[in-house]
Amino acid sequence: MEPIKPYKKSFEYSYTLGAFPTFEMLKCHPELVKGVYVHTSFTDTDGLIKLCSEHKIPILTNDKLFNKISDKENCFVIGVFDKYECTLEQNRSHIVLVNPSNMGNVGTIIRTAVGLGIYDIAFITPCADLFNPKTIRSSMGALFRLRHQHFSSFEEYQKNYQNHDVFTFMLNGSNTLEIQNCPKTDLFSLVFGNEATGLDDSFLNVGTSICIPQSPDVDSLNVTIAVGIGTFIFTHQTR
Amino acid sequence: MEPIKPYKKSFEYSYTLGAFPTFEMLKCHPELVKGVYVHTSFTDTDGLIKLCSEHKIPILTNDKLFNKISDKENCFVIGVFDKYECTLEQNRSHIVLVNPSNMGNVGTIIRTAVGLGIYDIAFITPCADLFNPKTIRSSMGALFRLRHQHFSSFEEYQKNYQNHDVFTFMLNGSNTLEIQNCPKTDLFSLVFGNEATGLDDSFLNVGTSICIPQSPDVDSLNVTIAVGIGTFIFTHQTR
Repeated sequence: MEPIKPYKKSFEYSYTLGAFPTFEMLKCHPELVKGVYVHTSFTDTDGLIKLCSEHKIPILTNDKLFNKISDKENCFVIGVFDKYECTLEQNRSHIVLVNPSNMGNVGTIIRTAVGLGIYDIAFITPCADLFNPKTIRSSMGALFRLRHQHFSSFEEYQKNYQNHDVFTFMLNGSNTLEIQNCPKTDLFSLVFGNEATGLDDSFLNVGTSICIPQSPDVDSLNVTIAVGIGTFIFTHQTR
Repeated sequence: MEPIKPYKKSFEYSYTLGAFPTFEMLKCHPELVKGVYVHTSFTDTDGLIKLCSEHKIPILTNDKLFNKISDKENCFVIGVFDKYECTLEQNRSHIVLVNPSNMGNVGTIIRTAVGLGIYDIAFITPCADLFNPKTIRSSMGALFRLRHQHFSSFEEYQKNYQNHDVFTFMLNGSNTLEIQNCPKTDLFSLVFGNEATGLDDSFLNVGTSICIPQSPDVDSLNVTIAVGIGTFIFTHQTR
């Protein structure tokens, strides 16, 4: 394995920081794991050793590495893995994130989506780096449960997935999201915009635009919260 | 006004960093504002000057201060204000946060609550500092729209607010939250636990315990997302 350096977006590999995301990676994508570093002060190693030896993944020690790679003090396990890209499922509902810029938000959205049963997210570039260790940490390792695919535009996404009913979440959306009136559909794409700018008005004409009702006392809901509410309502529609 | 130092929790005053939260503070609590610093490179000053002069609040210049107080580069306005405590409304529904530890989460929850029409949050100590500039920033200034009150225990909160129907959000809650079966109540307290530990099992016997259904592929939803989903459903119950 090559020498370990602080993460850069241009790398073809990345890191999981902490035991929890490292386990998630080992369970979901063992074939991509190049090695797992365990700090000598970490004692709960039985499960890790078992999983790694099953998949012939080297367990390594290098305590100095931890300060170099992680900015948190409570990190005792680091996994090294090759980055990968997926293809979304044609027959499953999707979330589409248009130009999300904050890694913490992207990680939280991934964790939320997987928690609510959506395993496919399309990312319209430019967007935050999915494989940055910060994104992975804020996803709590749920990144490894997810199918994720990048597209250079929403049109390119739609060309590939033509059977989905599209719902765009916008402050000026034409339809107010209410529990009683959530559109009933089995195959949907829920589209959310950038944290600062939202979706531009061209998205008013793409599918059905939806506004989550909110008080005039805030500028808007945080995008992670909008995704949580929208996804919960759509995945729990009454029939 | 005393000399400006980097924020500490022990201070009796705090800062708003950025124009948006500073405006929110000036609109909601002008009587508490001691002064507003405006960076000389900031040009959109008309609204600020008008609001400050209406309330006889000094506008100050000290460009060096900005690096000292703010760790973000795009901060051009800093407000200085006296901290305050509120009393929750007896006749409005509440959110209760038990020992929240992360300032970003607390700020996001405040923004979400106010956005969804809940203006009263009880905080059970120990908890993250509401007045830390980071909390205020992640609330996008919604802190100033909120009534917030601290209690040393949940029992102390309940002693003061006895008419609320209490719902505790727990992974092992007895009732699954669904759109169709959300309890119908006009005066409720939604109770959420600490980020890492949730609510302990003693809360199973306090009011009605509720679990937000989630896939086995995540450890749990982020507490901010749980608050967003729970609050949206309770404030939009079908009748």
